[in-house]
Amino acid sequence: MKYENGIMKDVKIAYIGGGSRGWAWGLMSDLVSASDISGEVTLYDIDREAMEANAIIGNKFNCAKGAKSEWTYKTASTLKDAITGANFIVISILPGTFDEMQSDVHAPEEYGTYQSVGDSVGLGGIIRSMRCMPMFEEIGLAVKNYAPSAWVINYTNPMALCVKTLYRVFPEIKAFGCCHEVFAVKKFLLKAFNEIKGLNVDETNHRLVKANVVGVNHFTWFTSATYQNYDLFSVYKEFAEKYKDVGMDEPADTNWMNRMFTSREKVKFDLFLKYGYIAAAGDRHLAEFCPGTWYLDTPDTVEKWGFMITTVDFRKQDLKRKLERSKRLVSGEEEPVIALTGEEGVDQIRALLGLHDLVTNVNIPNVGQIPNLPLGAVVETNAVFRANELRPVISGNVPKNIYSLVARAVGEQIELDEAIAKRDLEKAFMVFSESNQLKVGKEKARELFDKMIFATKKYLKDYFN
Amino acid sequence: MKYENGIMKDVKIAYIGGGSRGWAWGLMSDLVSASDISGEVTLYDIDREAMEANAIIGNKFNCAKGAKSEWTYKTASTLKDAITGANFIVISILPGTFDEMQSDVHAPEEYGTYQSVGDSVGLGGIIRSMRCMPMFEEIGLAVKNYAPSAWVINYTNPMALCVKTLYRVFPEIKAFGCCHEVFAVKKFLLKAFNEIKGLNVDETNHRLVKANVVGVNHFTWFTSATYQNYDLFSVYKEFAEKYKDVGMDEPADTNWMNRMFTSREKVKFDLFLKYGYIAAAGDRHLAEFCPGTWYLDTPDTVEKWGFMITTVDFRKQDLKRKLERSKRLVSGEEEPVIALTGEEGVDQIRALLGLHDLVTNVNIPNVGQIPNLPLGAVVETNAVFRANELRPVISGNVPKNIYSLVARAVGEQIELDEAIAKRDLEKAFMVFSESNQLKVGKEKARELFDKMIFATKKYLKDYFN
Amino acid sequence: MKYENGIMKDVKIAYIGGGSRGWAWGLMSDLVSASDISGEVTLYDIDREAMEANAIIGNKFNCAKGAKSEWTYKTASTLKDAITGANFIVISILPGTFDEMQSDVHAPEEYGTYQSVGDSVGLGGIIRSMRCMPMFEEIGLAVKNYAPSAWVINYTNPMALCVKTLYRVFPEIKAFGCCHEVFAVKKFLLKAFNEIKGLNVDETNHRLVKANVVGVNHFTWFTSATYQNYDLFSVYKEFAEKYKDVGMDEPADTNWMNRMFTSREKVKFDLFLKYGYIAAAGDRHLAEFCPGTWYLDTPDTVEKWGFMITTVDFRKQDLKRKLERSKRLVSGEEEPVIALTGEEGVDQIRALLGLHDLVTNVNIPNVGQIPNLPLGAVVETNAVFRANELRPVISGNVPKNIYSLVARAVGEQIELDEAIAKRDLEKAFMVFSESNQLKVGKEKARELFDKMIFATKKYLKDYFN
Amino acid sequence: MKYENGIMKDVKIAYIGGGSRGWAWGLMSDLVSASDISGEVTLYDIDREAMEANAIIGNKFNCAKGAKSEWTYKTASTLKDAITGANFIVISILPGTFDEMQSDVHAPEEYGTYQSVGDSVGLGGIIRSMRCMPMFEEIGLAVKNYAPSAWVINYTNPMALCVKTLYRVFPEIKAFGCCHEVFAVKKFLLKAFNEIKGLNVDETNHRLVKANVVGVNHFTWFTSATYQNYDLFSVYKEFAEKYKDVGMDEPADTNWMNRMFTSREKVKFDLFLKYGYIAAAGDRHLAEFCPGTWYLDTPDTVEKWGFMITTVDFRKQDLKRKLERSKRLVSGEEEPVIALTGEEGVDQIRALLGLHDLVTNVNIPNVGQIPNLPLGAVVETNAVFRANELRPVISGNVPKNIYSLVARAVGEQIELDEAIAKRDLEKAFMVFSESNQLKVGKEKARELFDKMIFATKKYLKDYFN
Repeated sequence: MKYENGIMKDVKIAYIGGGSRGWAWGLMSDLVSASDISGEVTLYDIDREAMEANAIIGNKFNCAKGAKSEWTYKTASTLKDAITGANFIVISILPGTFDEMQSDVHAPEEYGTYQSVGDSVGLGGIIRSMRCMPMFEEIGLAVKNYAPSAWVINYTNPMALCVKTLYRVFPEIKAFGCCHEVFAVKKFLLKAFNEIKGLNVDETNHRLVKANVVGVNHFTWFTSATYQNYDLFSVYKEFAEKYKDVGMDEPADTNWMNRMFTSREKVKFDLFLKYGYIAAAGDRHLAEFCPGTWYLDTPDTVEKWGFMITTVDFRKQDLKRKLERSKRLVSGEEEPVIALTGEEGVDQIRALLGLHDLVTNVNIPNVGQIPNLPLGAVVETNAVFRANELRPVISGNVPKNIYSLVARAVGEQIELDEAIAKRDLEKAFMVFSESNQLKVGKEKARELFDKMIFATKKYLKDYFN
Repeated sequence: MKYENGIMKDVKIAYIGGGSRGWAWGLMSDLVSASDISGEVTLYDIDREAMEANAIIGNKFNCAKGAKSEWTYKTASTLKDAITGANFIVISILPGTFDEMQSDVHAPEEYGTYQSVGDSVGLGGIIRSMRCMPMFEEIGLAVKNYAPSAWVINYTNPMALCVKTLYRVFPEIKAFGCCHEVFAVKKFLLKAFNEIKGLNVDETNHRLVKANVVGVNHFTWFTSATYQNYDLFSVYKEFAEKYKDVGMDEPADTNWMNRMFTSREKVKFDLFLKYGYIAAAGDRHLAEFCPGTWYLDTPDTVEKWGFMITTVDFRKQDLKRKLERSKRLVSGEEEPVIALTGEEGVDQIRALLGLHDLVTNVNIPNVGQIPNLPLGAVVETNAVFRANELRPVISGNVPKNIYSLVARAVGEQIELDEAIAKRDLEKAFMVFSESNQLKVGKEKARELFDKMIFATKKYLKDYFN
Repeated sequence: MKYENGIMKDVKIAYIGGGSRGWAWGLMSDLVSASDISGEVTLYDIDREAMEANAIIGNKFNCAKGAKSEWTYKTASTLKDAITGANFIVISILPGTFDEMQSDVHAPEEYGTYQSVGDSVGLGGIIRSMRCMPMFEEIGLAVKNYAPSAWVINYTNPMALCVKTLYRVFPEIKAFGCCHEVFAVKKFLLKAFNEIKGLNVDETNHRLVKANVVGVNHFTWFTSATYQNYDLFSVYKEFAEKYKDVGMDEPADTNWMNRMFTSREKVKFDLFLKYGYIAAAGDRHLAEFCPGTWYLDTPDTVEKWGFMITTVDFRKQDLKRKLERSKRLVSGEEEPVIALTGEEGVDQIRALLGLHDLVTNVNIPNVGQIPNLPLGAVVETNAVFRANELRPVISGNVPKNIYSLVARAVGEQIELDEAIAKRDLEKAFMVFSESNQLKVGKEKARELFDKMIFATKKYLKDYFN
Repeated sequence: MKYENGIMKDVKIAYIGGGSRGWAWGLMSDLVSASDISGEVTLYDIDREAMEANAIIGNKFNCAKGAKSEWTYKTASTLKDAITGANFIVISILPGTFDEMQSDVHAPEEYGTYQSVGDSVGLGGIIRSMRCMPMFEEIGLAVKNYAPSAWVINYTNPMALCVKTLYRVFPEIKAFGCCHEVFAVKKFLLKAFNEIKGLNVDETNHRLVKANVVGVNHFTWFTSATYQNYDLFSVYKEFAEKYKDVGMDEPADTNWMNRMFTSREKVKFDLFLKYGYIAAAGDRHLAEFCPGTWYLDTPDTVEKWGFMITTVDFRKQDLKRKLERSKRLVSGEEEPVIALTGEEGVDQIRALLGLHDLVTNVNIPNVGQIPNLPLGAVVETNAVFRANELRPVISGNVPKNIYSLVARAVGEQIELDEAIAKRDLEKAFMVFSESNQLKVGKEKARELFDKMIFATKKYLKDYFN
């Protein structure tokens, strides 16, 4: 890398899972829109065809309208080749296929457990982790051997366990996990602010909201939130009281597909009014960290609380559409259009390159930023990104009245991490049987666990030795 | 106090709840059997008649066969009078009557939640705490005002919250909680040792077993256990494997009453074989800290796991028998007979008086003895009792695979403590609704909560202001 | 306050010590140069004449060339009046007069101890603290009573003890200490960078350097330092090796007065080359934290190491000049000219008002930002300033090989704090006698201590009750 | 090992430094006096002749009057052979010879630094450590390879660094350091108690005193001390006031040799009266942790404070006498006589074998027993010895007013540990130059350091590669 004329040149990024549709194009958009960095992106994916297509698409982005920097896209045929020499390594993979995910999310329904996402915690999250973590062990060891000083940015779920695994196999790794859920809540707070105050602040800019972040990924909480010198807690209280029963309107112009990921925010209101702190993730995620009887008891309960279960059928259809678009982009039938993601990955990269200071939320092991959670557990708090340094901000204790739910989730993380590290199915089942999503007794639970394991067995060979 | 001829004389003990039948007589037995202390016991109870009777009985104990020291029993008509000048204050009270307890334990059955004890955690434990803690606030403040340098020994359940409350209202208090469950498990380990090794070690002496204790009261765990240089873990493993399915025999000569408190130890075996650490409390208690579906799902489940629900009907009948015995003891129709309790209270008192060193398990606020639990939460670990000093031993982290269950219980403790401190019914309901014993959704949960609150409302006036 | 048209209006600042010459004018310059805040400054000083003069001067600054905002200057006749209603309270006072300081700095010379500043640690620092802390107790209590939610910014030395005292008397205070020494070192690193790399980066902008800050005020250390993606440690090593013997040139155009505060940076080089971390304060300060034999053994030693003892005679003359200038400014004979201080106070205020994020070094009590120093001791690390929130960044342990010197200084701080809190002369003398600046035995030390106490006795009445 | 008839048989002890005269015979006395353990002791020493002689003497102890158990003494020709199969490993070595020690202790005198012992801290302690720690690295690695589950008991000075080194090279080692200085102070407290109270408690039994121990070896402090229910602090205060000026009488019947190790306790009184806590080590040791000007300024100062410098000439003469006695013991000219040491090594072994519980002071790495000292530093506090387990008791923070001196010593420890681990002479000199014993400037200090290094260079080869 070298810094010349206000531009950091020759930045080398490796992208593991670089064949992704959609998400990869977002990163391409963000990179080409940054005027002060340029360089090379090496894509790596087990789906060779997909990554080759993305390399073509990526290079085309340099000519998209609004492009401010130039990036060369290549592919690598091995993980080693992909990351050797990289300054940054981005990980965004799908562990297994949607077929395995189908089982993760929907198999438990027969046993009374409904899951809105099924990728972070709970029954689906546990099985997904068992499949995913061996892959992250492999990635972590590759970083140790071939790119020990690279910064590693993870976007894959289950976020906390992915990051935990990287640090387990390579404790000196410079890895962190990045998630946009918090940003969405900040935007939502601006919306509330505008409505209550009758103002018109730009709701799309989450950086206008300053919040103290405490928790674990997808179950993060704000213990304070401010816009300039306004305390957003009192504003949000008024707003939540107003909408707690009816929920937010559904956006009129949105097709059913997008609705899959939206909600009427009633879970968020409920948690805020009960606990006094702002639950800062999507309702679909938040619900999965609470007892299964609260928001996900039955499909009716889900309906009543105003969010939707993201079905895997939907994900499959969505993928199909994206594959078609990929073809059009490669063939030139369609031109790449820059569409900023609102993610912060590129800004984090710029901060780590010394181009600006950035204070934002991040997932890294606890070294004291949350004193009442165990050291070493991966937690989400604010941190400072600066030239080649990432340091957590002390966020303080998890407040007493949410400690129980947060600590339970942390327990699931560290216990599952150990079970997976040892490839111990019995220990993994214990974690499964402790889930607060489970409705059935131990025997039924075992039956379900075995079914779900069977459905993903292709990825679990190590566990059966 | 003064030390003369090997005896610490003029020790002053205040006994809050001194009208108790049974438990008080045990303390009388233990005190009169200690040859190196003597002094005065002041009984205090809201049941005046009961405490007067006990004063008479207590004084008679000095003439019981085997008595080694002399104790004068008096009564006090106010809490202030009882504790002023005391060196030690013993608390063993029943918060409310068996009528309230009837509701605590049995009301949830209609909603699918069965409780084996209902006095520590879970639905019954929460309601009992709401009734009990205001009493402990009163006691703690009295200690602050009238006996700030006295040692306070609590035996009342919910143990953790009782101790927590004392420290909340008077942070400098010298209080600790004392529970015999751990001793019983140590004795049980010796039984296992004898059977597996074909030896004949005195099983009644729990002090022969050295164990590292980690956890919270009634959900304590041994992370190591040794008899001389034998590792009891390997012995216990063999024993547990042998009996996990059939359970221990029921003692042949035991009437149904005692059976109420015994178990076939199958829960204990199950937890050990699953987690690799020794769960060190009675099965009836352990079961209540695990998800409600595990051991308490239905009466059949309870039966299958070989323990019993301690009904309040039983407790009422038992009280009746003790009342009759009390009358006989007062009238002289029956002579007091020394029956050692196996509790350590008197030995702890002797240690705090400098008469010997004692290392044993105790319930006090966490100041680092369990690094991965929150500071200030009341935990159970070993501690050293010596001349006027009680200092916790560093027990180390809660092991990863039991962290989730233990942390959940700690969360219930600190969250409920805050709700009660503020007399906040809504916050208390949140704790209730987070219980892993609950089977129903939020609305039904609220209905149950309201019923249980109503049943104990006589003791909850503060909450309705 | 209200935010309108991009400007935070009606910001209320109280300035304790507002009669200062020089320093006050700097703050006036900085305030009037900030385009996005405006409001009112209330000056308070025991020197009424001085504060009246400064109110006049302050108001004139609104018309200075380059003024971008408007500030109204007032005076208050009591501390209470000054701070009631304030959003920010700035403290910059001289504890006592230069006559007391004369004794602090120079009395020890007769006993073989030379001091380059004498206001932070060591013999002079200790006596100054004894005089100063009672004033800060008064200020802290006033904040508690009249402005509990105001942000308090301290510039007074001894920095660490001033901040510690504020938190001692009012633990919930929102106070921090602000010092420019670190900025100067960052600028110096840019100078080194330019020379070694043959580049021309703007040396006056300290924000271009990102450093991890660990230590206590005036004895702060960088454990990393970066300009963009350049590691400044390797650059600085080359630079230090080059200049370690000769030192930096003295600026040719500087009169002797300014030289009093400059140095040839040889102490800084020596410490860096010995310890491997960048000592980040002026040489005059750093020298006072090391054993007295190292850099301050004799006037010759000081000369050899290329810095100067800041004599109090010099300070008196300097004050005289400033008094004359004050008169000219009041009379209109001279116009106020905006001269930015390079301090960050105004930027910190803007950050706390939510106008931008700021990551910078600050002095606050340790809550875990430096894990191997005692909790509660005032330390200097980076922290994040954002909307109404100041949170420390975890800087990590003090490196092992500087721990001894840093911990010694922390010990002096916490021990002296206790001695002063109790107004205990004997305890204060113990701190004095432990100083690593002291050359003489205990009896001579006591003689010196008594002399110095006598010289400042006017301010120590409390200690003699 | 096996436990039979109340005796733990076949205990295997390796004794590194087993050729020692005097100290070894003490251990032989202690072992043969313990009725409930027996087994085998393997001696290892680089002085083969000495260890052979001790094996003969050791076996003779079985027939000494009062012998209660039987021990077989053998020798081993390699460290590996000595420790393989051992249950306990005792380390008591002299690093180098008295010739090196001559330089350690006396070379600094020419530069104005007088040392009373010179083996723990300060100039002599630092050089001794540089010689000693490589030996402990070798021992620690041997334990790792050949006896990883053995308990390792160190008696060698510098105690803290010896233990630190063992843990550095083998973090899982079960090692601790054992020192009798604390016991002597406890006995002294009983003496004070008897005099002040006019009683006659057995002064030789240190276990009668219960004290909370905080600090580092040879600079340990009691923050509380009790005999039964008597607070010894008030007693000791009266006693110290009485004798602070005159000091204790010298024992009339003691020859000059023993006086070398005794003192008039005036340092102890002075520290107690100044700081309010009981300094719990011999005056000769305590003095070396305080600024060099306090108690060791000149030989006159030492005389005035009533203790003596233990000259190495004395040690050499003492060794000569012991060599002669060794010959007589081997030849049978003299019979071994059991003389208990008053050390606790054998009792600690018995506790670790599960034969009793023992709470006593010990040197192990800080895992939270002293929260305001760095984790990992070797500290001295109480700990519980029980069946195969050693766990520290939480002693609480070092009190504020002694923190500075204690933390300085801890800093010397951890900084020197790092310098030695890296065999870095420059870093070692930095530690040397920071010593509060040093009176001279850096150049003279370097001259002295080089001389002392030269005098011990035979043992420092690694440092010159």
